[in-house]
Amino acid sequence: MQSLLNDIQKVVGTQGILTGDDVTQRNVDWLRGESCQAAAIVRPADTDQLAAVMALCHAANQPVVTHGGLTGLVHGGRAAPDELVISLERMTAIEELDTLAGTMTVQAGVPLQKAQEAAEAQGWQFPLDLGARGSCTIGGTIATNAGGIRVIRYGMMRQQVLGLEAVLADGTVISSLNRMLKNNAGYDLKHLFIGSEGTLGIVTRAVLRLQPRMTSEETALIAVPSFEALSHLLALMRQKLGGNLSAFEAIWQNHYRLLTVDSGRHTPPLPAEYPYYVIAEAQGIDEEQDAKLFNSTLESAFEQSLVSDAVVTQSEGQRRAIWAIREDIEGLLAEFSPLFTFDISLPIERMARYVEDLEASLAARWPDTGRMVVFGHLGDGNLHVSITVGRDDTETRQAIERLVYAPLAVLGGSISAEHGIGLEKRDYLGLSRSPQEIALMRTLKQALDPKHLLNRHKVLNGAYHQ
Amino acid sequence: MQSLLNDIQKVVGTQGILTGDDVTQRNVDWLRGESCQAAAIVRPADTDQLAAVMALCHAANQPVVTHGGLTGLVHGGRAAPDELVISLERMTAIEELDTLAGTMTVQAGVPLQKAQEAAEAQGWQFPLDLGARGSCTIGGTIATNAGGIRVIRYGMMRQQVLGLEAVLADGTVISSLNRMLKNNAGYDLKHLFIGSEGTLGIVTRAVLRLQPRMTSEETALIAVPSFEALSHLLALMRQKLGGNLSAFEAIWQNHYRLLTVDSGRHTPPLPAEYPYYVIAEAQGIDEEQDAKLFNSTLESAFEQSLVSDAVVTQSEGQRRAIWAIREDIEGLLAEFSPLFTFDISLPIERMARYVEDLEASLAARWPDTGRMVVFGHLGDGNLHVSITVGRDDTETRQAIERLVYAPLAVLGGSISAEHGIGLEKRDYLGLSRSPQEIALMRTLKQALDPKHLLNRHKVLNGAYHQ
Repeated sequence: MQSLLNDIQKVVGTQGILTGDDVTQRNVDWLRGESCQAAAIVRPADTDQLAAVMALCHAANQPVVTHGGLTGLVHGGRAAPDELVISLERMTAIEELDTLAGTMTVQAGVPLQKAQEAAEAQGWQFPLDLGARGSCTIGGTIATNAGGIRVIRYGMMRQQVLGLEAVLADGTVISSLNRMLKNNAGYDLKHLFIGSEGTLGIVTRAVLRLQPRMTSEETALIAVPSFEALSHLLALMRQKLGGNLSAFEAIWQNHYRLLTVDSGRHTPPLPAEYPYYVIAEAQGIDEEQDAKLFNSTLESAFEQSLVSDAVVTQSEGQRRAIWAIREDIEGLLAEFSPLFTFDISLPIERMARYVEDLEASLAARWPDTGRMVVFGHLGDGNLHVSITVGRDDTETRQAIERLVYAPLAVLGGSISAEHGIGLEKRDYLGLSRSPQEIALMRTLKQALDPKHLLNRHKVLNGAYHQ
Repeated sequence: MQSLLNDIQKVVGTQGILTGDDVTQRNVDWLRGESCQAAAIVRPADTDQLAAVMALCHAANQPVVTHGGLTGLVHGGRAAPDELVISLERMTAIEELDTLAGTMTVQAGVPLQKAQEAAEAQGWQFPLDLGARGSCTIGGTIATNAGGIRVIRYGMMRQQVLGLEAVLADGTVISSLNRMLKNNAGYDLKHLFIGSEGTLGIVTRAVLRLQPRMTSEETALIAVPSFEALSHLLALMRQKLGGNLSAFEAIWQNHYRLLTVDSGRHTPPLPAEYPYYVIAEAQGIDEEQDAKLFNSTLESAFEQSLVSDAVVTQSEGQRRAIWAIREDIEGLLAEFSPLFTFDISLPIERMARYVEDLEASLAARWPDTGRMVVFGHLGDGNLHVSITVGRDDTETRQAIERLVYAPLAVLGGSISAEHGIGLEKRDYLGLSRSPQEIALMRTLKQALDPKHLLNRHKVLNGAYHQ
């Protein structure tokens, strides 16, 4: 290892390599806290350096783990003592912003928020948005195909990427920095690297597609009398608001109540008595007209008894206060400890029953200590389930995981909507994907990384190492 | 071969296999006319039949060519006498349309227009649209990642596909019929089959994402004084019309003039004296408001001297008359014979110069007979170039191809924006993709179809058969 590190240091310089306390002080799990165990953290300054480092690692059969902003939730950043971490933290340049075409070329280490702000400064928007915007990186959001709150309108990270550059396990640079909307010249290789969690290559640069900046915004917190009304409200808003609907976040009563009246963390803008709540957001380009349309859509919803009560925000402060309830993960951590969080998707018409059944099985198993709350991106079929049972051991975790995941196989759901598989969910992959699909994933891994050097053991379980 | 055909007939029945005149009478090239040369056309009735057929072909090392609607332009449908054609023409069911979630599950042989109409009948739209809508199939548009006239707003076919099912070369069924917007459970395998032109698997079914149906539509033919004005007009309409801009089709004067005053095929809605024309289309959900916005945007463009003249259509008849100029491929064939058509993409700021240079080199090489006209989807960086020089031999074709393709490598363009590579462009793939990218494509082909049974020789050149 030391000889390899010496060779790597010749490539990246002293600035480009961290060891000792600089490694162990790094927290690879923001939710639970976990020290980085890697032998060293290698920080290439550019793609060429990274390619040279990977060529050295490949020759030495040295496995590596790639780090972006370390905001993931499935232990994707965990590294063993015999592994090296590759961190893109020094590759933070926005290389180009084409204001005519609406594209932006960035290095993988650029934080999401920095990319958003750069686009806005030039009259465009980069629409992907999520709570971790300040820390998560473009490279990490590509590798995990991040989602967030605007997917209903703009799609996931995959839809924002026009071109990308990645380094393969052997140091080969695959530079597909396409800037055009249309390019059917051969296989579209970028999709190999988007959402494969760094197991097929290391994303180094990307060309992102920008969207016209919206100038109007309406936000409402809406109380809804039933799940059926909730799904009809979604359909109504989609139809009536045309393309303007940009978020439709459902909050179950238990979640809303926990973070408002029960914990006292937030003043409830509406009483906590209703079965469901929605944060609905629309964005457009005509303030007066869009507000009229938003309000008339809400009126239609009232007339159809899809809405029990609603607050349309009148100020940025009100808007933030409502979103703060939804994004208060710290509140969840404070109230539910130890916390287990899940990120699942399933067809909307099966959601209500799924949640009811899960509540029932949790209560049956942990009648005194089991508690759960639910919120999610309803328009995307994506629920975030938070559970606590007062214990944190492996057996408990696995028992809860089985309760959450097992029904999804029958319901046509997914064990991961947007967080990925990482280490945390790989043993459950077979619940969401067929043996033929998993075999094909292994075929790809074997073809691109036959030595299994990139994020080994992640996504696919150990069996592929045979 | 006969023994294999007997075995196949046991799987698909007599209805499921065509031979003799039924094969040769099939035209595999609608532009130039070309008889199908395959040994037989196999027409499975469902995925199970196709899987069994491919298992037989795999055991017998029998190469196959997949047929969709045969509307392609790169000889993707061409089959040799020792090959079998697999046609999806009997798999034409719309299996499900989920009006709540806005998804549609269809078999690969469903024509695009049938899918569009089914969505509209339920208050949704399937937004992908192109001239071949009546004949091209969902499976074919997936395999080629089709584009068309609405890409600027809704993206290419890839963006419309939530899940799909494909049969591999050995008969394995990869069923990834995901219906959810968000599913990050492992590699997103569908992207292997989208745009790889049937070389990695045969698409059998798909889950398509629907969009809210728009209820207002504005269309204008706009005359533009310069290319610079053209690109600024695009930027202005993108910004001012918010998400409503749904088409921005640029027509060079030579193309407009050919199909109106020169050929007499269409009455010119505007004089044929302007350098550029645009068909701009916006769709929304508020007829009055959207019309106001469209007109005020055009007024701004006039004030900024981006527009010389414009006709905003006042009836469906006027709208169709304008689109008919743009979609009159028969007119092109009648006026330019023999015709060479090209489908390229390049950054917008480099287009004007590219076209000028190409005109100059064409005139230098064929001063008396060389003629070319240009139109394209400007918002997507996609041009369609039509050329005739009065000859049709191989040497002439290759000389023209070099003139069209060679400059694209320098300009960061692509030899195929939306038509694919097929047989026609595979020798030029290296102009748009790096040796590393092409090597990775070969790695994928080798991993998924090691016997090279699926659409052999297409996309990648013969070298990979070594």
